[in-house]
Amino acid sequence: MISVVLLGAGNVATHLYKAIKKSNYAIVKQWYNRSYSAISSYANETETIDNLNNIKDADIYIMAISDDYISNFSKALPFENRLVAHTSGSVSIHDIDKKHQRAVFYPVQTFSKDAELNFSDVPICIEVTEKKNLQFMKDLCSALGCTSYRITTEQRQTLHLSAVFVNNFTNQLYRIAHEISDAKSINFDILKPLILETAKKVQDISPYMAQTGPAKRNDNKTIKRHLKQIESEDHKTIYELLTASIKKTHGQR
Amino acid sequence: MISVVLLGAGNVATHLYKAIKKSNYAIVKQWYNRSYSAISSYANETETIDNLNNIKDADIYIMAISDDYISNFSKALPFENRLVAHTSGSVSIHDIDKKHQRAVFYPVQTFSKDAELNFSDVPICIEVTEKKNLQFMKDLCSALGCTSYRITTEQRQTLHLSAVFVNNFTNQLYRIAHEISDAKSINFDILKPLILETAKKVQDISPYMAQTGPAKRNDNKTIKRHLKQIESEDHKTIYELLTASIKKTHGQR
Repeated sequence: MISVVLLGAGNVATHLYKAIKKSNYAIVKQWYNRSYSAISSYANETETIDNLNNIKDADIYIMAISDDYISNFSKALPFENRLVAHTSGSVSIHDIDKKHQRAVFYPVQTFSKDAELNFSDVPICIEVTEKKNLQFMKDLCSALGCTSYRITTEQRQTLHLSAVFVNNFTNQLYRIAHEISDAKSINFDILKPLILETAKKVQDISPYMAQTGPAKRNDNKTIKRHLKQIESEDHKTIYELLTASIKKTHGQR
Repeated sequence: MISVVLLGAGNVATHLYKAIKKSNYAIVKQWYNRSYSAISSYANETETIDNLNNIKDADIYIMAISDDYISNFSKALPFENRLVAHTSGSVSIHDIDKKHQRAVFYPVQTFSKDAELNFSDVPICIEVTEKKNLQFMKDLCSALGCTSYRITTEQRQTLHLSAVFVNNFTNQLYRIAHEISDAKSINFDILKPLILETAKKVQDISPYMAQTGPAKRNDNKTIKRHLKQIESEDHKTIYELLTASIKKTHGQR
């Protein structure tokens, strides 16, 4: 049984807590947060603490906290030579104080408070400073039902960048479509199945193969008409840039 | 029982054929295509024809053909005053020859040959020139299990434009993430659950509410580091533009 002390109470920490709780191979030995109120409702399920001096022995300490606090917080942990991981996509593993055995446990997913999510679908990217901890990290991921990938720091930072494209930027395109359709009193629900299908398609075929539409087939008549329809200059610029990007990818000009 | 003559054999026509075939309230009376080989394999299920002179009486004739052919093809149909619909997102209803009763049956979805798709999840946008045909079009959609929306031509063309944002442009962002991660030998599979979750999220909450990430929280340190990581100038321009767009939407600067 893998014992975990969970540090932090944000979205990642909360989803991770629930995933560990469901596992038959891992337990949350303690859950720490500096503000106790965020975890107090779990006090009857696990040991909840807000004082680092009460922290117990465990196989791993997972800091699911803001990037900016990782370095100082790891220094403040009142022990050494135990396995301490952060969950960040961008912070270096070396930001964890060197008095610890260090690791990264980076779940590549977007977590929100309310959205239910099957944690076992979340890919976990792992890094370790001591090779002996690699198998342990893999076992931890297995205990949660997750697929793990050993990656380098550079790869993790590249993933974090890629995630901005497929998550934040994609969501902004949804937002723009929402604005464009709202302006003509169109129910955004009409676009939702298309949004979902677009994401489903690339689960099986590459985005290159999945591409369709006027830019891909170099249909400049439609592109011109679309540009005429767009009322916002900002949206027009984005339309032009992404159209050019698709044309370049697919050898049009 | 609603009788349909289906005209064309592309992806929309094929998915529509299967949807009608599954329905208890509609039948494909005939399936026409100018090249017979595309539909010959269905000859034992329905009447397949490649000669318009053999076309029979039906409640509706649905032209699921390329935008550019709609006008001429509708002229060539050897009858008049029957209900004829096209399935295009952008072609005017008036492109259908005026000897017919005219309608639009626009399914807002991306169809590919292979991808299995639950047609009843597809929203259908309808238009009619004769008011008396409105209820019939709604009944046809119901017969296929689809939700229908009566919209104007302008709304349909706006939907078509919006679809480019949420489908083609979103897919290009997936492609860029694929390029960026490939360059560092990262398995694209790691990003797939995030892609799916991003699309799922906006099924329940607005894209505005769903937004997260460095641009939304004005985290310029991360933005700067990402820009430094990006190797392609084209990708950098897209990163900057969409970051600015998110900042504007969320009142950052």
